[in-house]
Amino acid sequence: MSQSVSIQRLLDELERLPGIGPKSAQRISYWLLNNELADAQRLAHAIVEVKQSVHFCARCFNYAEDTLCPICTKAETGQRDSGLICVVSEPRDITAIERTNEFNGVYHVLGGVISPLDGVGPDQLRIRELLERLSNANVYEVLLATNPNVEGETTAVYLARLIKTLGIKTTRLASGLPVGGDLEFADEITLGRAIESRREM
Amino acid sequence: MSQSVSIQRLLDELERLPGIGPKSAQRISYWLLNNELADAQRLAHAIVEVKQSVHFCARCFNYAEDTLCPICTKAETGQRDSGLICVVSEPRDITAIERTNEFNGVYHVLGGVISPLDGVGPDQLRIRELLERLSNANVYEVLLATNPNVEGETTAVYLARLIKTLGIKTTRLASGLPVGGDLEFADEITLGRAIESRREM
Repeated sequence: MSQSVSIQRLLDELERLPGIGPKSAQRISYWLLNNELADAQRLAHAIVEVKQSVHFCARCFNYAEDTLCPICTKAETGQRDSGLICVVSEPRDITAIERTNEFNGVYHVLGGVISPLDGVGPDQLRIRELLERLSNANVYEVLLATNPNVEGETTAVYLARLIKTLGIKTTRLASGLPVGGDLEFADEITLGRAIESRREM
Repeated sequence: MSQSVSIQRLLDELERLPGIGPKSAQRISYWLLNNELADAQRLAHAIVEVKQSVHFCARCFNYAEDTLCPICTKAETGQRDSGLICVVSEPRDITAIERTNEFNGVYHVLGGVISPLDGVGPDQLRIRELLERLSNANVYEVLLATNPNVEGETTAVYLARLIKTLGIKTTRLASGLPVGGDLEFADEITLGRAIESRREM
């Protein structure tokens, strides 16, 4: 051991983070050692604070600090369309969709997808809560935005069947070639889907 | 703003770290949110502790928790050769050299390199402390391990001139092709250096 105990401990903790390998952990720890104590304290405080103050939104199960998340709060004052609900698997999917600036409705976080192999059935997801929201409010459309993989599709198909019986319009994210992509490098399933869903110009 | 205040604060703090962009910061913050509070607290504690307990080794200016760093401590008990001093620019260079398991001497950290453009002259580096060590102990060789770039070479040449007057053998890290590298992709200066320093087989 040629490393200080506390440096080694910091390296170990940093390497547990996703996407942080030994080299990144080392760069970060040296950055911290070279910077002010106040910087380290601010980072440490932010890490603990996020765990202590963030919980789930009472309505949509996004991360929230108050009872409602910032998006549901905006819906309360009419700044977002509460008649259009986008169903996602995890809170991080909300961030991705928000970045597009294409969606002005509200969300519902399932907390996972149907995956029998992992022992996750419909009862483990927040589907009951979704149906409750649909029966109460004047929702006119549900956009199913689970991932375009096997589990995500299964979940979307399952939900679509349930929601259609309520007489609510149910939509799904489009599949096709990524913008800026290349036909040559597209996998055959994506390309097939792009042909199948071709649109008139 | 569709993000909680404390999540946004954590993202801002994480993005200040070297090598952490918006995507990595997001992955890390969601990882923290999905894990136990104890995990976050341990990470936060390690970050602050490293700043509070780590300072510079009184002898070589490596990072240390006690008066001496682990390497200088080993040299005290004869487990490392205190007659061979490797001069590096920063403590992180020690980690790189230690990983090779090729060096059993001790170190001296300059705290930078001579760089007139950045206003760093010999007086800003720990050169006086190095010369003091050389005059006291029975040092028989100084290995100059500053980076093989302009500033590193300048510093090495400057130090070599000083140390030679003390009658101590002065060596420099070899330059040449990286092991596993490819002639085709080597830059001409490195390849030129490899030819110049060719060794008999």
